[in-house]
Amino acid sequence: MSSRRQVRAAACLVFLLLVPALVRAQTDPLPSWNDGATRQSIVAFVQKVTDRSDPGFVPPEQRIATFDNDGTLWSEQPIYFQFAFALARVKALAPKHPEWKTTQPFKAVLDGDMKTLGASGEKGMVQLLLATYTGMTTDEFTKIATDWIATAQHPRFKRPYTDLVFQPMLELLAYLRANGFKTYIVSGGTVEFMRPWTERVYGIPPEQVIGTSFVTTYKLGADGKPSLLRQPKIDFVDDGPGKPVNIQKFIGRRPVLAFGNSDGDHQMLQWTAAGDGARFMGLVHHTDAAREWAYDRQSHVGRLDKALDEAKRRGWTVVDMKSDWKKIFAFE
Amino acid sequence: MSSRRQVRAAACLVFLLLVPALVRAQTDPLPSWNDGATRQSIVAFVQKVTDRSDPGFVPPEQRIATFDNDGTLWSEQPIYFQFAFALARVKALAPKHPEWKTTQPFKAVLDGDMKTLGASGEKGMVQLLLATYTGMTTDEFTKIATDWIATAQHPRFKRPYTDLVFQPMLELLAYLRANGFKTYIVSGGTVEFMRPWTERVYGIPPEQVIGTSFVTTYKLGADGKPSLLRQPKIDFVDDGPGKPVNIQKFIGRRPVLAFGNSDGDHQMLQWTAAGDGARFMGLVHHTDAAREWAYDRQSHVGRLDKALDEAKRRGWTVVDMKSDWKKIFAFE
Repeated sequence: MSSRRQVRAAACLVFLLLVPALVRAQTDPLPSWNDGATRQSIVAFVQKVTDRSDPGFVPPEQRIATFDNDGTLWSEQPIYFQFAFALARVKALAPKHPEWKTTQPFKAVLDGDMKTLGASGEKGMVQLLLATYTGMTTDEFTKIATDWIATAQHPRFKRPYTDLVFQPMLELLAYLRANGFKTYIVSGGTVEFMRPWTERVYGIPPEQVIGTSFVTTYKLGADGKPSLLRQPKIDFVDDGPGKPVNIQKFIGRRPVLAFGNSDGDHQMLQWTAAGDGARFMGLVHHTDAAREWAYDRQSHVGRLDKALDEAKRRGWTVVDMKSDWKKIFAFE
Repeated sequence: MSSRRQVRAAACLVFLLLVPALVRAQTDPLPSWNDGATRQSIVAFVQKVTDRSDPGFVPPEQRIATFDNDGTLWSEQPIYFQFAFALARVKALAPKHPEWKTTQPFKAVLDGDMKTLGASGEKGMVQLLLATYTGMTTDEFTKIATDWIATAQHPRFKRPYTDLVFQPMLELLAYLRANGFKTYIVSGGTVEFMRPWTERVYGIPPEQVIGTSFVTTYKLGADGKPSLLRQPKIDFVDDGPGKPVNIQKFIGRRPVLAFGNSDGDHQMLQWTAAGDGARFMGLVHHTDAAREWAYDRQSHVGRLDKALDEAKRRGWTVVDMKSDWKKIFAFE
């Protein structure tokens, strides 16, 4: 090889070696996050746990990240979206239930009487959930939930509910997975309402979705065909102290990262924080009434009070939606 | 390039293209399986579901394979190994429980009186399980189970219990994973007894182990440290009809392959068989008293009766341990 060709080849080689670094520098994994302490705390954590030479290194199989859903990965106003589904189902099923015209809380739903509905409290909500989420096979329910999520529209944004997922959180999920994390949803919402669409929307497969569940029973039909029947009985409420309990039951490992937005996530964050080694605890604080909503301590959904105090006291990461997120929804 | 060099280059290219095929042909993924109908049914199924041009093709994310543990992945004689653990724990804990000297079924365990112990039936077994598997934190139980599995020896083989895993099934698990399957354990055994060692022994991580569970509660200590307490109450029995129920609860997808060895796996196999498209249902039939054990319809553990009849009627794969397995244990 002539010395001129050698120089060219060497230049070529140097360029090729640089390509990955150039690509890395040019591809920001978190483009919807403004630069600042919040974003830096995320990046610093991921760099620490993936760096073999760092004392905080975490082996890939232990990189478990758990996320609340309502208010953390998508919006939850003016009512939890799974509850909007229940109300829509009451209306759809009403012709088969003439007694609902005179029975609360069903009457309130059919009359659009939100005041009476609100007054029916948790008992009324459970009645509505049992009447709409149970009494069918698991396959039938999956179809009902899939159809609703494909067609229903959010009242404020006039868009499918799945358009109301937070773009910065989608980026965070993908960034974690690209760094060897296994991402889970751990939600107070009912699990089979979420599983039909979490893979498409969040890249999280059904087997990594944990939620509130109803008792299910196995039945072998007269035709020899088995089915799983959803019974009108709550199996487990995956909220508050139920979250660490279910994380242990389903995953069997303690998360190294957990993200929530309300007091219902408080114990999940405490449980995550109490493990050994590097930890990341995050809260989404809804502070942007213009682009999304602003609420915390007094809210009827996603109430954030004690967990916010503990986060401030212990230095957990609190995302200020308004200042930390360049973009909230992909459609903006 | 001269034509001679072209020929050489072409020959070289052809050789390189052949390498993967040669490697494939030379590396048998199932060396402990004798050639025959059983082995062929496994290989044919895997080829079918992984071949994009086959109508039976299954996308990778839907390749869920569920395996019973006791009697399917390792031995279960003369008593379920988790029960051997319970007996050992009664002996270890006896000094703290002087009342056990005069209380059944504990007295029978301490006296080595297997006849009385057997007569105590399921009620006695549950009492022993509650006394030995609960009453501590989840972290404490993990340590106890890990220590026992590392030191206890099987009475017949004088080896650690984890040496009694079936070599052909280890090969099958690895072969399925190499073909894009996600492998799960769905066992009547208690989940937290298995999780500490399934990754090391089977290559199955804790989050893919489903089993019988005890109620667990979250507690925030006076020192601000949270813990999960194992309560003396059964949460869910993952056996018989409980298996498809738990598969739905934990995985949310129907398996395309399921393997068991007893009537406790019957409903899991029925549920798997009832799905659309290509399916594989397998039973390990214990037929080798010399190398392992021979038992089925009348056995006190792993009773295989109705499921065996249905397997024969519907053409499910029944592994004849004696003739289908060249080797049963790795140590042979």
